[in-house]
Order: sequence, then structure tokens, then C-alpha cells
Amino acid sequence: MKLATLKNDTRDGKLVVVSKDITRYCAADNIAPTLQAALDDWANIAPRLEALYRDVEHQTVPCERFHEREAHSPLPRAYQWADGSAYINHVELVRKARNAEVPDSFYHDPLMYQGGSDSFLAPRDDIPLGDTAWGCDMEGEVACITDDVPMGVSKENAANHIKLLMLVNDVSLRGLIPGELAKGFGFFQSKPASAFSPVCVTPDELGNAWTGSLIHHPLMVDYNGEPFGRAEVGEDATFNLAELVAHAAKTRNLGPGTIIGSGTISNKGTDGGPGKPVAEGGLGYSCIAEIRMIETISDGKAKTRFMAPGDSVAVWMEDRDGHSIFGKIEQEVVGI
Amino acid sequence: MKLATLKNDTRDGKLVVVSKDITRYCAADNIAPTLQAALDDWANIAPRLEALYRDVEHQTVPCERFHEREAHSPLPRAYQWADGSAYINHVELVRKARNAEVPDSFYHDPLMYQGGSDSFLAPRDDIPLGDTAWGCDMEGEVACITDDVPMGVSKENAANHIKLLMLVNDVSLRGLIPGELAKGFGFFQSKPASAFSPVCVTPDELGNAWTGSLIHHPLMVDYNGEPFGRAEVGEDATFNLAELVAHAAKTRNLGPGTIIGSGTISNKGTDGGPGKPVAEGGLGYSCIAEIRMIETISDGKAKTRFMAPGDSVAVWMEDRDGHSIFGKIEQEVVGI
Repeated sequence: MKLATLKNDTRDGKLVVVSKDITRYCAADNIAPTLQAALDDWANIAPRLEALYRDVEHQTVPCERFHEREAHSPLPRAYQWADGSAYINHVELVRKARNAEVPDSFYHDPLMYQGGSDSFLAPRDDIPLGDTAWGCDMEGEVACITDDVPMGVSKENAANHIKLLMLVNDVSLRGLIPGELAKGFGFFQSKPASAFSPVCVTPDELGNAWTGSLIHHPLMVDYNGEPFGRAEVGEDATFNLAELVAHAAKTRNLGPGTIIGSGTISNKGTDGGPGKPVAEGGLGYSCIAEIRMIETISDGKAKTRFMAPGDSVAVWMEDRDGHSIFGKIEQEVVGI
Repeated sequence: MKLATLKNDTRDGKLVVVSKDITRYCAADNIAPTLQAALDDWANIAPRLEALYRDVEHQTVPCERFHEREAHSPLPRAYQWADGSAYINHVELVRKARNAEVPDSFYHDPLMYQGGSDSFLAPRDDIPLGDTAWGCDMEGEVACITDDVPMGVSKENAANHIKLLMLVNDVSLRGLIPGELAKGFGFFQSKPASAFSPVCVTPDELGNAWTGSLIHHPLMVDYNGEPFGRAEVGEDATFNLAELVAHAAKTRNLGPGTIIGSGTISNKGTDGGPGKPVAEGGLGYSCIAEIRMIETISDGKAKTRFMAPGDSVAVWMEDRDGHSIFGKIEQEVVGI
């Protein structure tokens, strides 16, 4: 099934069931007022939402027109947002650009940071930027939402706790990252509010494009209206989403509505080295930092600048027939 | 006023107003069902809770006996928990124990990490520990809860967004910290669920012990029933709580119910060097790591071990008449 949260006059919005072609919706707030409320009692609520989804698909309930611009992020705020870095090619590029080695541990122990989850951006919200020198970047990723996950869950069982999937633009302030990481406590100011796709879906919606806790479709990223990234989400992932969930739950329970992200989608490219721009037939990039690294490796310096007010990014995913699965994240940077 | 959240059959518990002497309570769920709901509309809800608090104090409403053991953490789960490290003496000791310098920036740019907030421990809950080698430690701290804080708030205005104060035991797994920090993304597995005091209070409850966005009382920490820490919260803070809130809000808005912690309370000791144990007339420590650092500096190696199943910690604070302000965090480590 497909779910969304429509903006209303509350902080958590209104839960709706969305048709497979994401053109129609039916309010689900008589089943659960919010997506968080549904996740809090998922075993009981999900079957009722699934039944409503069947009615929506069969057009046996009245529906209204679904406008992606009216959607919040599926969880407008969440109790947990933890982002992995499963595509080690991204890390390898960063390190290569500064002639540093990738530690062996990175290939078997996931990188993950705890992100801020108190107020996400909606998928069509502007990205507020206080200072261009902060080096605003997009990061196109996929993410899952879990129900209750017990501490110490195995990778195998973790897969069963992945209840919903969605896309994310993990906004990053590259100019603030080196100073912040040097302090040793990880990201904080360098990771402002992220935005998620207008629609989240149960894994079964992906059919055989969901195997091994990975999504097997390209992530579409456009930058200022031009194709920028078409990276294959199912390729080059050192860790799948279930492994990231198990990593997060090693020392503690995870509450329902926990969002776990994949990290920036990044492919190695056909020659085993860095990818090429989409315009040159490559799979491109899911963030600006990556093309800058490739420019640095090949030309000694980066020429693509980070995002400034007026720059825009779109992130979406299509099924094999070219239909949008999650709706589109479309955001413009605005100075404040 | 004083507020608490009683355990019930929901994930977020029931909001109650507690008498100043924390012996009685009156349900407030007809005003707001949960503390989060109250914070979501604080400007309207707080005056009604204050009115009920006056009735509780004047004994003009029926009250029930308040048992601290029946309390959840005031926010059983929160949309944000960010912990500073305002007591630089703690950092200086860590660095001194390994002959490293404290960067100058640490004295004007707060250390802060994003913590997990999806399922806190209740103040009397056991601390579940998977492996003694993880090096379980307590960290006695104070914390504030904010309402909506706008991005870029000044330090001066940040103080007005501090709506509630409480205590916290920020459980840390010392054995996992070096490896995790070496990866560069900050704490994750090394910071399992924290526990907060049974009661949170508005700053005015502290009278003249709340000045300059600092609490001026010692933090009482007992370990296995013996006095362990009596550190002065109002002394040796490089940053006050308002400065930590402003730091957190530099690049993003903070949602209501954001919890910002002080970091481990740590005093320099009367001689300007490390403090002495309470048994020797000193102010002691708010975590085991600190006494281990002092042992390392003076004897070349640490002799106090980290917490193992059966070890217990208590954290509380008293006013100048010896009355408990926030109730007591009392937890025992259990192996799982």
C-alpha cells in the first residue's frame, strides 16, 4: 500500500491512503489520525489500512485528487532518524580526493549518524539557508521506517521490521562538516532538516524490485532542471537496509517510526572507478560533493559550486514502466 | 510548576501536575493528554497547568499520592535529544589522561551530539546491558526542554525558550566510544537509552538558584549506595543552557519538546586541578570515566571498573533545605 501525510492545521498532519498511481487519496484518519499513531500499533492498524488501499484501488470508496504539493514528509517529525552510509563508493571518493585510506572496518561495520528528527521539511518546502558559505548540498537517498525493533535483533529478523520505504533529500552543509567532525562528536549544525518523498510505500509495492532488503531501481536526481543522478540503488551497497537496522539496534531498542537511511546512493561506474556525468552517459551523482571530488581527482580542483539561493533539486524514483513510485521531492534553496 | 508523566497503557504516558514537595499529584490530562501535547501548544497550555499547580499547592483540588517509581521520564520519547558538553573540565581530564591538548575552539564553540530519543528509560528502569565489555557508565547531567525555537536564535532569546528543567542519566558505553568516534560520525551504539528525573520543573521553581541559564545547586550522584558526586552545576560551566540551545538552533528550527543536555557535570576542584572523591572531602564525579581518568593521571592506570550487572546509580538534586527538587533517578544495571 501507499501512504501519505497531508498538511493540515496540526504538527503531524493527516494520514491518507494513496492510490498506486498516486493520483487519488482517501482519508485514513478514522483508522489512525497520523502515520506515527499507525506505526505505534502497526500489527493492528496495517491490515485496516491495507483493506482501505484495496478499496481505493478498486474505486469502491470515494477518493479525492492527490496533490504532491499538499503532502508533508510522511512523518513530519519523528522520534528517530538515523542515517547510514551504505554506498562505500561515496566514502572512497571523499577519501581519494584527499589521499586518505578507507579503513578496512568500513567494509563490515556500517557508518551511521544520529540525525535531527524534530521538524522535517515537507517534500516541496524550500531549503532555508543562512549563509552560502555553509556549502549547501543535497543527498539523494532511500530510507525505511520500522516498527518496534528489539535490541540485538539479527540482520535476518531486522528485515521483518522494515514496514515502509521512502526517499529522502538529506540536506548537508558541507562547509560546516570538516570543523564539526574534527570536534569528534559527529554532525550537528552541518545536518539541518531533511525532506522525504510525498509518499511512503510498503515493500511489497516494489514487487521483485525489493530483494535482499535493497531497492532495485535507479534514484533519479535532477539539479536545476537537468539530469544529475541516475544511480542504481540496488548496486554497490556495502550494507542493505536490514543490516543498517540491525546496526542501529545493537545496544538499544528502536521505537516505532524509527527512520533509517541508506546514505547517498553512489555507484562505482562501469570501469570500477568514479562514475561519469549523466550527460556523458554515466549514472551521475546523488550529491554535489561527489562530482566535486571527481573534479578534484581529475583536475586538481572542484569547479561545481554548492547550492545557493535559487538552485533547485528534484529526487524521485520510477518503476519499470516509468511511473513515479514515491512522488517527487522538489526543493529550492532560499536565503533567510 | 512541577510536572510528571505517569506510566499508563500508552507509549507517552499521562501528564500530571505534581506538588512542590513531590508527594501529591493531580491529573492534567483534561488540559493536555501528554507533556508533548502541552509543549506543542505551550503558550496556551502552560497558564492552565500553572493554575492547576496553584490549586494543587493550595489543596483546593483532589490529589493522589505521587510515587516516583510510577513515573516515566517526563517525555518518555522525544523528537529531539541533543547533549552538549558544557563542563570542559570533563574534556580536559579525558585529554590529559591521554596527553592530548584541548583545542582552543572548545572554549567558545560547544561540543554537542545528537542523541537517540525514540525510547527513553523511565527514572527507575533497569539499564539493560548486553556485554560488560561495552563499559557501561552513568553521566549525571541537567537538561532543559524547549518550545519552538527559531533557526538562528540569539543566546539572549534562547533563554526564553527554556520552558522546563530536569535531570538526566546519560548512559554511555565507554568501551564502544573510541571505535565509534574513530569512524568520524559521532556516537551511536555507544549512547543507548538515557533516563530522566521523575519530575520536570519550570525555571521559576528554582528561585534564585536559576540565574544566567544555569542551575546553582550540586548534582547528587550516589554509586552503589555511597556518595560519588556532589559537583556544583553552577560552577565551571563553559556554556550555559541558553548558549547550548542557540548552538543547536544555528542552522535549523528546533521543534517543541527538544531536550538539550548540559553534558556531565564536572568541577575543577579547589586547587584548579582534578577533584577529589567525596569521601576525601571533594566534590567527586558525575561519571565513572572521570575517576578513572584521575586514577590514570595519578597512578598510571585506572582501578575503578565500569558498571556491571548489579551496580546501581542514583541521581538527584536538593534545594537549600534539603528537599528533592526533581525526584530521584535510581537505576540498576541488568545483563540481558
